[in-house]
Amino acid sequence: MSDTFVVVGGDAAGMSAASKAKRDDPDLEVVVFEKGEWVSYGACGLPYYVKGEIQSLEELVSVTPEEFREERDIDLRTGHEVVSIDPDERTVTAESDAGTVTESYDSLLLATGAEAVVPPIDGTNREGVYTLGSMSDGKELREYVARARDGEGLQQPDRGPACRYLEDCSGPVAVVGGGYIGIEMAEALAANGFEVNLFQRGDRLLKGFSEATSEAVADHLREQDIVLHLGSGVRELAGEEAVDAVVTDGGRVNVEMVLLGTGVRPRTDLAADAGVELGETGAIATDPYRETSVDDIYAAGDCAEAIHAVTGEPAYVPLALTANRHGRAVGQTVAGQPTTGGAIAGTAAIKAFEVEAARTGILDHEEALEAGFDPISETIDAKSRAGYYPGGGTVTITLTADRDTGRLLGASLVSEYGEGAVHRSHALVAALTEGAAVDDLENYDLAYAPPFNTTWDPVLVAAKVLSGNLR
Amino acid sequence: MSDTFVVVGGDAAGMSAASKAKRDDPDLEVVVFEKGEWVSYGACGLPYYVKGEIQSLEELVSVTPEEFREERDIDLRTGHEVVSIDPDERTVTAESDAGTVTESYDSLLLATGAEAVVPPIDGTNREGVYTLGSMSDGKELREYVARARDGEGLQQPDRGPACRYLEDCSGPVAVVGGGYIGIEMAEALAANGFEVNLFQRGDRLLKGFSEATSEAVADHLREQDIVLHLGSGVRELAGEEAVDAVVTDGGRVNVEMVLLGTGVRPRTDLAADAGVELGETGAIATDPYRETSVDDIYAAGDCAEAIHAVTGEPAYVPLALTANRHGRAVGQTVAGQPTTGGAIAGTAAIKAFEVEAARTGILDHEEALEAGFDPISETIDAKSRAGYYPGGGTVTITLTADRDTGRLLGASLVSEYGEGAVHRSHALVAALTEGAAVDDLENYDLAYAPPFNTTWDPVLVAAKVLSGNLR
Repeated sequence: MSDTFVVVGGDAAGMSAASKAKRDDPDLEVVVFEKGEWVSYGACGLPYYVKGEIQSLEELVSVTPEEFREERDIDLRTGHEVVSIDPDERTVTAESDAGTVTESYDSLLLATGAEAVVPPIDGTNREGVYTLGSMSDGKELREYVARARDGEGLQQPDRGPACRYLEDCSGPVAVVGGGYIGIEMAEALAANGFEVNLFQRGDRLLKGFSEATSEAVADHLREQDIVLHLGSGVRELAGEEAVDAVVTDGGRVNVEMVLLGTGVRPRTDLAADAGVELGETGAIATDPYRETSVDDIYAAGDCAEAIHAVTGEPAYVPLALTANRHGRAVGQTVAGQPTTGGAIAGTAAIKAFEVEAARTGILDHEEALEAGFDPISETIDAKSRAGYYPGGGTVTITLTADRDTGRLLGASLVSEYGEGAVHRSHALVAALTEGAAVDDLENYDLAYAPPFNTTWDPVLVAAKVLSGNLR
Repeated sequence: MSDTFVVVGGDAAGMSAASKAKRDDPDLEVVVFEKGEWVSYGACGLPYYVKGEIQSLEELVSVTPEEFREERDIDLRTGHEVVSIDPDERTVTAESDAGTVTESYDSLLLATGAEAVVPPIDGTNREGVYTLGSMSDGKELREYVARARDGEGLQQPDRGPACRYLEDCSGPVAVVGGGYIGIEMAEALAANGFEVNLFQRGDRLLKGFSEATSEAVADHLREQDIVLHLGSGVRELAGEEAVDAVVTDGGRVNVEMVLLGTGVRPRTDLAADAGVELGETGAIATDPYRETSVDDIYAAGDCAEAIHAVTGEPAYVPLALTANRHGRAVGQTVAGQPTTGGAIAGTAAIKAFEVEAARTGILDHEEALEAGFDPISETIDAKSRAGYYPGGGTVTITLTADRDTGRLLGASLVSEYGEGAVHRSHALVAALTEGAAVDDLENYDLAYAPPFNTTWDPVLVAAKVLSGNLR
């Protein structure tokens, strides 16, 4: 009898694992339990769906449930919530409208993902308060925007793409949180004519990026008429049934809607109940092969820790590529070829209106000190194309290195959209993953032609300046 | 008395060396002999000047002679051609309109650059035959284009930016050579209304790139109404005083002008006469610090060899960044801090109309075999942005690796302009410089967001596919 590989959760990590395992070992029985109806969807696309640049939720789905079942021969059971795991008996129990089912496994993958954090303040359950974690969240938000544009919330339904072009703005809304979701949703809402107030507890946006990047993005958001409330911890979402104001230490801002973009946390209840150990980050701890403390139970994606390429320590950075990579690696492993799927570098990218930014590695000096490094940082501005070539803009790059060894620890980049901050970050990911020093980086023979960069690409300029400071 | 550093040649390598040496050691006497009037100019910008996107040659100059003299305190002598070097006496002799001057040196840099190769065929000295190596070449070509647009050569001076929009094309011209200069000049001439015939001896353009890249660029050039004559060795440039036809094995094409873009060769006469050894490539041989076979004589830039990052062997790849990097390194070295300036990877980038391409490392299997590798290549097409995100296109990537070790040897990328082939190449330069294997590369935690790439960036897709083939 063939082995059975059971996957709990049908998004990036789960479906990558299921697909890879079945492809590499067609004799394997692969069962996926997904509590919702959607599988394998690009949650990263939800802000663009709400914005209106993507017309249907179906477009976010890379492979449909039917394709998984019929073409990939995966026993995908949507609408099935796994409620318990028995590691001794090697079974999982799932509930659905049809009742309760118990399935045996030889290998099990926990791919339960993460959920939006709702901050512990009053009023988060009022009408008009949204989060954006799931496809149904996206649907609700799009419906809200459509209603508002049809005149129920906004005064001028036909008033064009962005509030700043209007004489009279109305429909003030709040975004709480200045991370990816918060900023992408600020763009999505502003593009639909809302006056957007963005509240950030800390004193800058995108706190994992460099200060220079945060400032460039903040300046740009202000230019786009986003009202930034930095250093503004939200006390309460006030109102009757529906929210009508955000109350901070500094005062009260009337709004018609609130989007909470205050981060995510790993879904670990099922794992914890089964006796699977969690790490210090609160996510599921694993070995390099994504195996948990319990034999033959793996964890990957937004519910699990991973090893950081710079520190060598476990870290929790829930992002799509890691989920895909590590899910796929588990699939290979259970199909008989043990695979780690590699480390993470905490790399992330964002487009905010007409700027783009990326970050990777360790930028924060406290974090670097804790990891045993002696950090030094440098920020440069450089032209994105040859000075004489038409167009172009500025790329601002912050690099952090270890003073003793010169090793590159982290990088943060920002430029106008299309001027290459994000694609330039790939070289820095490569360099820090390979343990390169900034004086190695300074000598990389990077591609040059006037329509793309200056003879010394901004990446090389940054390395040259920081390397000079280390001598 | 302070030491004297004499530099022969005032472009990228020479002026980088002079500036760095003087900055690091202000007591050093720095003398630069430049036979022409222009120094420190971006020759890479000349096609865009001829095209008309750059309005004056002065825009291509990054630092003026006056700035070098007055702000950087460099004894820059333009209009001075060095005619001999006496290594025993440690002197150089230069000629100018004012006469002959002999200067003593403690260190000497040969930064004599490269010159356009004129192929050994009949007719290259006819009127209407141009090369594009120097600022004066650029000036002559721009004047030719202006004359033609004013009606002397072209029938319809006001007929718009490109021949393909016209009912009746005239002014057929020829570009001989399908490398960077040839293709960039084909764009520059087409944009000015010329019907461009591009002749390439070999059977594909951009022979240092992958076949997939060459084909993508060729297809795009044809779409832009460039008439490609591949596998067409030119026999003769026919005509009376002025050229009026290109004669190939296959026939005769009437043209009004010919641009020779048939490569460059290092200017080494001065070095050879002084007893400086040349390498197998024909360029000046140096040690890792750019010192030649003669003590205290250095060579850098387009006249010199450099060590290839993949093979570890001397190579000749005359490009701007290397000249800058190695010139600067010599400046540091003569100022007392020995610096290699790093290896080269043969990296290059080109924009051709609305496509962009880059290449790095060793792609050619024969070349890889000679260097002791067992090459394997794979080419993939992938989406440049998330499938559901508006816009975007295709990135085609060829990777070559060593079968035994998995080590990345080379890469070639092509995409629509703006879709990131060139900036993505930087990661591959980093990887191959660090000696990474494709299964390392496959696991890089590259930045992802829907406006920039798919969850697995095309670079990762290429690595994944090639890595799969190696197992």
